[in-house]
Amino acid sequence: MELGIVGLGKMGGNMAERLRRGGHTVVGYDRDPDLSDVGSIEELAERLSPPRAVWVMVPAGKPTADTIHRLGEVLQSGDIVIDGGNSHYVDDQKHGEALAAKGIGFVDCGVSGGVWGLENGYALMVGGDDEHVKRLMPIFETLKPAGEYGFVHSGKIGAGHFVKMVHNGIEYAMMQALGEGYELIAASDLVTKVPETFLSWQEGTVIRSWLLELLNRALADDPELDDLRGYANDSGEGRWTVQAAVEHAVPLPAISASLFARFSSRQEDSPAMRVVAALRNQFGGHAIETAGDGDSPGADVSPPPV
Amino acid sequence: MELGIVGLGKMGGNMAERLRRGGHTVVGYDRDPDLSDVGSIEELAERLSPPRAVWVMVPAGKPTADTIHRLGEVLQSGDIVIDGGNSHYVDDQKHGEALAAKGIGFVDCGVSGGVWGLENGYALMVGGDDEHVKRLMPIFETLKPAGEYGFVHSGKIGAGHFVKMVHNGIEYAMMQALGEGYELIAASDLVTKVPETFLSWQEGTVIRSWLLELLNRALADDPELDDLRGYANDSGEGRWTVQAAVEHAVPLPAISASLFARFSSRQEDSPAMRVVAALRNQFGGHAIETAGDGDSPGADVSPPPV
Amino acid sequence: MELGIVGLGKMGGNMAERLRRGGHTVVGYDRDPDLSDVGSIEELAERLSPPRAVWVMVPAGKPTADTIHRLGEVLQSGDIVIDGGNSHYVDDQKHGEALAAKGIGFVDCGVSGGVWGLENGYALMVGGDDEHVKRLMPIFETLKPAGEYGFVHSGKIGAGHFVKMVHNGIEYAMMQALGEGYELIAASDLVTKVPETFLSWQEGTVIRSWLLELLNRALADDPELDDLRGYANDSGEGRWTVQAAVEHAVPLPAISASLFARFSSRQEDSPAMRVVAALRNQFGGHAIETAGDGDSPGADVSPPPV
Amino acid sequence: MELGIVGLGKMGGNMAERLRRGGHTVVGYDRDPDLSDVGSIEELAERLSPPRAVWVMVPAGKPTADTIHRLGEVLQSGDIVIDGGNSHYVDDQKHGEALAAKGIGFVDCGVSGGVWGLENGYALMVGGDDEHVKRLMPIFETLKPAGEYGFVHSGKIGAGHFVKMVHNGIEYAMMQALGEGYELIAASDLVTKVPETFLSWQEGTVIRSWLLELLNRALADDPELDDLRGYANDSGEGRWTVQAAVEHAVPLPAISASLFARFSSRQEDSPAMRVVAALRNQFGGHAIETAGDGDSPGADVSPPPV
Repeated sequence: MELGIVGLGKMGGNMAERLRRGGHTVVGYDRDPDLSDVGSIEELAERLSPPRAVWVMVPAGKPTADTIHRLGEVLQSGDIVIDGGNSHYVDDQKHGEALAAKGIGFVDCGVSGGVWGLENGYALMVGGDDEHVKRLMPIFETLKPAGEYGFVHSGKIGAGHFVKMVHNGIEYAMMQALGEGYELIAASDLVTKVPETFLSWQEGTVIRSWLLELLNRALADDPELDDLRGYANDSGEGRWTVQAAVEHAVPLPAISASLFARFSSRQEDSPAMRVVAALRNQFGGHAIETAGDGDSPGADVSPPPV
Repeated sequence: MELGIVGLGKMGGNMAERLRRGGHTVVGYDRDPDLSDVGSIEELAERLSPPRAVWVMVPAGKPTADTIHRLGEVLQSGDIVIDGGNSHYVDDQKHGEALAAKGIGFVDCGVSGGVWGLENGYALMVGGDDEHVKRLMPIFETLKPAGEYGFVHSGKIGAGHFVKMVHNGIEYAMMQALGEGYELIAASDLVTKVPETFLSWQEGTVIRSWLLELLNRALADDPELDDLRGYANDSGEGRWTVQAAVEHAVPLPAISASLFARFSSRQEDSPAMRVVAALRNQFGGHAIETAGDGDSPGADVSPPPV
Repeated sequence: MELGIVGLGKMGGNMAERLRRGGHTVVGYDRDPDLSDVGSIEELAERLSPPRAVWVMVPAGKPTADTIHRLGEVLQSGDIVIDGGNSHYVDDQKHGEALAAKGIGFVDCGVSGGVWGLENGYALMVGGDDEHVKRLMPIFETLKPAGEYGFVHSGKIGAGHFVKMVHNGIEYAMMQALGEGYELIAASDLVTKVPETFLSWQEGTVIRSWLLELLNRALADDPELDDLRGYANDSGEGRWTVQAAVEHAVPLPAISASLFARFSSRQEDSPAMRVVAALRNQFGGHAIETAGDGDSPGADVSPPPV
Repeated sequence: MELGIVGLGKMGGNMAERLRRGGHTVVGYDRDPDLSDVGSIEELAERLSPPRAVWVMVPAGKPTADTIHRLGEVLQSGDIVIDGGNSHYVDDQKHGEALAAKGIGFVDCGVSGGVWGLENGYALMVGGDDEHVKRLMPIFETLKPAGEYGFVHSGKIGAGHFVKMVHNGIEYAMMQALGEGYELIAASDLVTKVPETFLSWQEGTVIRSWLLELLNRALADDPELDDLRGYANDSGEGRWTVQAAVEHAVPLPAISASLFARFSSRQEDSPAMRVVAALRNQFGGHAIETAGDGDSPGADVSPPPV
């Protein structure tokens, strides 16, 4: 079928390519004229026959909001806009309502797959009306992986980004789980073969997983992970997951611990721990250096009775 | 090669079977005469030609300790004992030393695989001296899965059970991650297709894993998990993981959160939360029922300023 | 000085009373005519001489927003509105801007003290412009406790509610700390005098605190806290604290754990734990009932090797 | 009454002094002859009239174990040994049994108070038999603070150190709570008066406590805690608290989070976070640098769809 795509960066460009290979007609717009098939969003709309479908693949937040707003101006009743970016699910509802007021459909789509997506397909999680999703199925069929999984219409508008967000929250805790396990094994002087241990787990264990395979690829290149700093960024999605959980009164101890571990990893010095240190100084440091024998002032390695 | 096995329960029996299918000569002893090949541990030792290898596959703790002690009495210098149970790694060192005093080797082996092991092989994590492990390789080769992974000699005596313990700790946090994600998705009224969402994740996502597949099997039978109570036992290994981390000063927030969630799930009523409720009563309950308009006593759903 | 108060519930009524005792002229409005000094907000405004100050003490959220909006209509440039309720700090900024457009000042004030406030004074945490806060000092001086502490002008508009919110977040974790300690002590069979232990801590210890005193009052009435269920509500402020931390990338493990413990305490059954139970069933339950001796099928209390 | 003390360091020396001021006869032994009243433990025993009481105040672990063992050799049936150090409660039971075999009583005593103890008294938490504790009451009465609290006989042998341990666990979480709150407040640009805010909380708030007062002392000297690093040691007692909780299946999320935060604070670089970083590199870093417009490669601040 015919599809417009706004945003031909790595993700959008690859998705356009996969769709073309699948026999679809794709008209792409990008601010970079070298990438763009058309000179403007208006021209994009003109080049597509109604009822149109336009996939938005630009950064979440203002760029996506601006693009959707612009599409609301150039599209017409019966058309559909798909937000395939990393938008916050709460924005979907606003975008859907604004477009619905003009008779334009809106579908949100969480996309997983990264660089492998071009060849292997993208996992797609979709929210929106049945009618709209149904019309887009040819597109989704081509984008998704070849197997029987990798596509879901999860629910109403916002559901696609919501479940993609939670997917990423789960991902945070799975990554943290592997990290904690690695650190504990590396700390033990019993274990002399750390990378070999993780590699062996790829078969026959309960924790075999794609993340374990990725860790083993990393360990193959850098067996002690010496080339890396213990510094981890977080995307909006981990934060939104915790915030959504707080809103829904859902306890999320492992996922939030994983998010906080990333926050901590980026701190040179923790103000909270400065408070703890200050308190320890107040009640201990000055005063009770030794709890022990008078003649062994250094012996009291463990802190004194407070 | 020739192997004695003590303990012919589900695990031990299946392992004996897999070894026999692999061409090994197995002599098994079990307290249940219907399962046992010999009448006693002495007879087991007599039936094997030195240097012997005897695999212990009985419950961790006292049963394993008693069995190893008994083997120390009937075996002789040059023989090897393998502890394939779920022993705490700190016990391995004691067992290894006691046997070493008699010239008997000791190898600890963490085993993963459960009922699928008979057909698919067992993931094996081994600790012990190179010389002993090398001698047992024909056994390990037969027990392990057919692929290139699933076996590791992780380090010294205790290393096998240590890494198996950490594997289970990681498993706890991965299970918790899926559980938290499920709960949050189920709490959202945007998402109408919960099991379909999890099923779709088996392809193209970052969190695809064997645990996800198991969850999908469970959801296929019971889409809302209605037949289950939110009650989860824990094995010793999750606890030992947290305790080992505390000893090594390794932060383990996600794994410990997962262990504590299991503890909480088994409480009918939480004493800690009774304290919190008692405190809330003390400073709020009696007194400041309404913070709001005098005429809308029920309006103050959110607690008053305290 | 002269002050209008909207909302004469427990909190607002007591504050009005304390102010009158302190020599101020208070005109109160409440929707309940039995409590109200005037028939309407318009009348309230008429009864005060400009420049007026009106304290809003109604439930957070819509009631507060509506009241502030209404005051914006009846007050005039040079007047000041004080929000003394439990508002979310993000709302303060909106309210402040809306009023500023009309030349009306806005001050937010977090209030702590509950029923004891009438006699002992209220801890006040204030945000707003110096000029406005200065003009209101006679009011704050009367409301605050008699000692040298209990009042702070923390910063800009929103700062008062922000620090009150964080105060409550800290409170959550302190309550949880006492709860966890209580539960562990109660679980030990070494300790036979639990309430006596907590009572003794009121002197000479590091954790002596008002919350400890409250716990001891509760234990005096109900030594095993048997009359309570382990069920704890949460106010908006605990949730907002965690959400603010996530926004600011501040790790908050103890406070968030305390919030999640309250969430869990209100669940009859945890969906997350049903997932964990389902997974355990999948890989363990069906299949590997016993890992041990054939003749002791029930002996394997701790789960089998998986 | 008459008391022997072994260990005349800061704590032991001050306690001896407080007891002498209270009219007791104290004979002290220390390895440092300048501090010691006697030349040996034997001489200490000789100088006391049976039935003797000897207070051990040396570092926990081996020094305490050795001292108690030595006292077992020189004391006789009917005497009592008190362990006033920071011993692990599990050791108390061993020590109690070893002494009981010789008819010697054993009492464990957790002590809080530090340098203020000499003047203000020490909070004492005691475990042991009624008969032994009763005999020692004159000592405890003198050591404890003057008020009605500060002493408890909590239960059996080990109970004193157990509840002191839990006291310290609670202390960890209360300190962490203050730290987290401080960090969040300091991160907000609404709040311009951070130390003033904490100081104001000393009156009228729910979280008023001795730890808050200590924090305010620290902030008075160093308003931004600039002279400190966010680095916090931990004593054995926080670790033992978590380990005891794990053993008793008591969920301890806030206290364990506080312990782990201290562990993290001492890491220059977190191996767990290196794993997380490695995984992010694997699935994101190489590949999907931009999710957005081709012409705005730097615009994609939030990570791309994975």
